[in-house]
Amino acid sequence: MKIGIFGYGNLGRGVELDARLHPDLELMGVFTRRDPATVKTLTGVPVYAAKELETRAGEIDVLILCGGSASDLPEMTPALAAKMNVVDSFDTHARIPEHFARVDEAARGSGHTALISGGWDPGLFSLARLYMNVALPAGKDYTFWGRGVSQGHSDAIRRIPGVRDARQYTIPVEDAVRRVRAGENPELTTREKHTRECWVVAEEGADRALIEKQIREMPNYFADYDTTVHFISEEELKRDHAGLPHGGSVIRGGTTGEGDQHRHVMEFSLKLDSNPEFTASVLLACARAVGRMNRRGDCGCKTLFDVAPADLSPLSPEELRRRML
Amino acid sequence: MKIGIFGYGNLGRGVELDARLHPDLELMGVFTRRDPATVKTLTGVPVYAAKELETRAGEIDVLILCGGSASDLPEMTPALAAKMNVVDSFDTHARIPEHFARVDEAARGSGHTALISGGWDPGLFSLARLYMNVALPAGKDYTFWGRGVSQGHSDAIRRIPGVRDARQYTIPVEDAVRRVRAGENPELTTREKHTRECWVVAEEGADRALIEKQIREMPNYFADYDTTVHFISEEELKRDHAGLPHGGSVIRGGTTGEGDQHRHVMEFSLKLDSNPEFTASVLLACARAVGRMNRRGDCGCKTLFDVAPADLSPLSPEELRRRML
Repeated sequence: MKIGIFGYGNLGRGVELDARLHPDLELMGVFTRRDPATVKTLTGVPVYAAKELETRAGEIDVLILCGGSASDLPEMTPALAAKMNVVDSFDTHARIPEHFARVDEAARGSGHTALISGGWDPGLFSLARLYMNVALPAGKDYTFWGRGVSQGHSDAIRRIPGVRDARQYTIPVEDAVRRVRAGENPELTTREKHTRECWVVAEEGADRALIEKQIREMPNYFADYDTTVHFISEEELKRDHAGLPHGGSVIRGGTTGEGDQHRHVMEFSLKLDSNPEFTASVLLACARAVGRMNRRGDCGCKTLFDVAPADLSPLSPEELRRRML
Repeated sequence: MKIGIFGYGNLGRGVELDARLHPDLELMGVFTRRDPATVKTLTGVPVYAAKELETRAGEIDVLILCGGSASDLPEMTPALAAKMNVVDSFDTHARIPEHFARVDEAARGSGHTALISGGWDPGLFSLARLYMNVALPAGKDYTFWGRGVSQGHSDAIRRIPGVRDARQYTIPVEDAVRRVRAGENPELTTREKHTRECWVVAEEGADRALIEKQIREMPNYFADYDTTVHFISEEELKRDHAGLPHGGSVIRGGTTGEGDQHRHVMEFSLKLDSNPEFTASVLLACARAVGRMNRRGDCGCKTLFDVAPADLSPLSPEELRRRML
């Protein structure tokens, strides 16, 4: 199966590196909106200009879209789903229904298959929520993120005047996780679930107290959390905060039996050294499933909820039953 | 959707109790090989003789088979899959390919849909293994069971002369779990992964030293494990070991990136107060999916690997995307 990559940032590079772990998937090229002559891939995969997607659509079984959810994917995914099979990692939860509808219309109309919101959240965490809810209909689930770098929150800090660079870690509150794991199903406010830790490089002469106040009071991003702000040098930021680790847990506590006498706790958790490389690996498995579904004539927009798990695996159904069931 | 139960032991009673949590599923009756007049259900569901399955097949959308894997299901599932849609929890891992083939032939030939090996292992743990393997192709996974009651091991102890009753707990070795969670991917022997704890009620005058020796040296069941044996009174067994708790973890550690520089650890874990009630709840969700697949003309034998997750849920695809993605 021939795979293309559109967009060559952290996620695109992750797909390129991870593809070597999926021997049934062949990387045919990277497409970029930059001048292809200025882009050098890590493993020597050819680079094409984005406009070549039109002429090379026949060479691509599935295109993995590695753009951002804020401004790229809302336009890019429906436009390209009209021309080929695509996979994206659209993660603006509130706008998923609208994105799904637009992609579905484009893919259905042209006989293609598209999968949106692949990755781990949305993605594997969504699957965990679904499986946990069907197994324990009477219960309550919780999602904790971190300890990990939130790129959206890091960007929000960088937009503050006087900030040269920043890295923000989302951290689950240990006591909250402990109570949820114990099956207590507590009511938890936003503040009780996560804290936020900011590492900031200020411009010389910038008013650090003002920067700190602007971070702590920023609505949506920080105002509802206990936030700590540390000022460090550019060298320290590069040395100690260069990685993009992330992870988290989905936990559901529920009951069964007479008088709800039996309590059960389910948990799915991830500890990731590299958020983009792990996300990329899930997207490659999604691309495999999309290619198979399209060959069977199963067109339109899909999410991981619609994908039979076996379609994600390179193994045959017989091998899967023998080795993993 | 109308659901029947065949077999009224712990698992059958679990299905009966859990069905109240699945409002779209209606329990039409319990079928038993015992004299129906001697069976009283917990919630007043009608009881029928097993032979009535023939005449009442038209009243059942999906029958949940609550027999044992050793002697019941190998005959029962193929025989009944020829007459109606069925779900079972067949858990003899080594014999799954053979069981699948026989059930598939029976179901396909008669236009029915059957799902085998539902529950949590095989079942949700199998799904965890599959999703983890596709997300992290380069890695190694581990399954730990417990702390929980193994009915097979408890039964094996009960067959020893001089034993009146027994309860066996499977316990994961903490240090092994810690190393696997840390992403070390160690090589572990059977003995290094689990210990076995036995609570035994001996007949009066029985040779306890001999019983203990027979337990510890029993091949397959105990010889490869560090086993502790405690003799207690019948009253103590009833008071302290009446429940059927179980659980465990599937953990996979793997790497991505240049020179495998990034390490990731995925974990799915369960802590269950009642193994049969939790298993039953998963089987009910499987029954929902089987009913839907059969209505769409998707016949033959399935496992959870073949079921699109959305088919397990009572929610519509739109609701699922809005609430869980």
